Amino acid sequence: MLRNLKMIVAYEGTRYAGFQRQKNAQTIQEILETGLSRLTQETIIITGAARTDSGVHAKGQVINFLTNSNIPNEHLQKGLNSILPDDILIVSTTEVPHEFHARYSTTAKTYVYRIHNHELRPLFNRNFTYHYKYPLNLETMRSAAGMITGEKDFRSFQAAGSVIKTTVRHIHYCIVKQIGFEICIEINANGFLYHMVRNIVGTLLLVGNGRLSVEQFQEILEIKDRKNAGPTAPARGLCLEEVFY
Amino acid sequence: MLRNLKMIVAYEGTRYAGFQRQKNAQTIQEILETGLSRLTQETIIITGAARTDSGVHAKGQVINFLTNSNIPNEHLQKGLNSILPDDILIVSTTEVPHEFHARYSTTAKTYVYRIHNHELRPLFNRNFTYHYKYPLNLETMRSAAGMITGEKDFRSFQAAGSVIKTTVRHIHYCIVKQIGFEICIEINANGFLYHMVRNIVGTLLLVGNGRLSVEQFQEILEIKDRKNAGPTAPARGLCLEEVFY
Repeated sequence: MLRNLKMIVAYEGTRYAGFQRQKNAQTIQEILETGLSRLTQETIIITGAARTDSGVHAKGQVINFLTNSNIPNEHLQKGLNSILPDDILIVSTTEVPHEFHARYSTTAKTYVYRIHNHELRPLFNRNFTYHYKYPLNLETMRSAAGMITGEKDFRSFQAAGSVIKTTVRHIHYCIVKQIGFEICIEINANGFLYHMVRNIVGTLLLVGNGRLSVEQFQEILEIKDRKNAGPTAPARGLCLEEVFY
Repeated sequence: MLRNLKMIVAYEGTRYAGFQRQKNAQTIQEILETGLSRLTQETIIITGAARTDSGVHAKGQVINFLTNSNIPNEHLQKGLNSILPDDILIVSTTEVPHEFHARYSTTAKTYVYRIHNHELRPLFNRNFTYHYKYPLNLETMRSAAGMITGEKDFRSFQAAGSVIKTTVRHIHYCIVKQIGFEICIEINANGFLYHMVRNIVGTLLLVGNGRLSVEQFQEILEIKDRKNAGPTAPARGLCLEEVFY
């Protein structure tokens, strides 16, 4: 009987060329499909909620796939976890209705970007945080972060050269938290443009460091042109935390 | 002018054959000495507070060394951090009196042993925690942990075959904490026998899992024979947190 299975997947993206399958490069999708195909003895094609870039991590990536296998979910998950490399982990496995599609059925996603704001480089967290050693003003960063909530055109924060129907997205919240030396920027939206979180973070860092005013940040958002925004923050600081349906 | 410098050093021990210099194996000591010798143009020999084993980590290892170099401490630290591999970091550098000896001057050390107590293996913390998937009773573990505080003969928890003057040590505290799925065993003592923390943890896990009673743990301590205690817990869960002087 054909079943649609949904899995929550966590991974450290450091060693991979991103989520999506590519020729001549190791990806999360390829490793998951190879493992699932081996266990089920079928050719499994998975769909992921988000196509995270090379070096980007996930605590709550969601995938789904169709299978005729009657291996119980728990056994399939255990078997897969035992053959996956130690930087990829299946967190949960559930059967879902056939209509469920990991990408198209999403209602929102949460990303967190971590910044190690200290003169000394990070040690234990070095693959999961961006080392930014210059002073940051959290108040101005929070003012700017408040300006991007709501339904807006985020063309200014889209990767240059992207071709897409609409660049309007709804950011439900963008919070700037401080936990010790770490600054976390948490963004929840109904969808994200390519490099959107990393471009927003790169621009917020310019605001925090005083190289852009909050008013200039507002202008960048309104001008709807990528070349006015700040640099794309490095991949290693970014993590897909949760996907909502 | 000959100066005695004290440095606090943090490292991830995964890639190293331990702290102490060895032939034909990469160690923390060798890397630090090579870097310091290069920067000062002297032959620097360092002393470490603790000879951590292969795979054991440190947040607060302490070293000292004598140097005639007049490079300011801050510059020496910056220079060293810029040439050290990304899994070793100098946290602070201070000049200390000539009598200061990183090992002999210690009054106490704190170690923390981290256990990932969940059916699923750890992902982001996998190099820093021991995966123990069986149920643990924290109450019995805490009762047993309470029995080892004070000045006692810890011969039962010393690595087999060790030759040492006295096996008496003073454990100031041994706390079993739970933070989510992680169980941390924090031990502070005036000194530690070889493998002492890992042997205590291996035995506490037998208590927590119900394979040893608290009374049997007490007997093991009193019988002063290594072969009665539990197995040595793996190195990856152990971290030297702080050294006191």
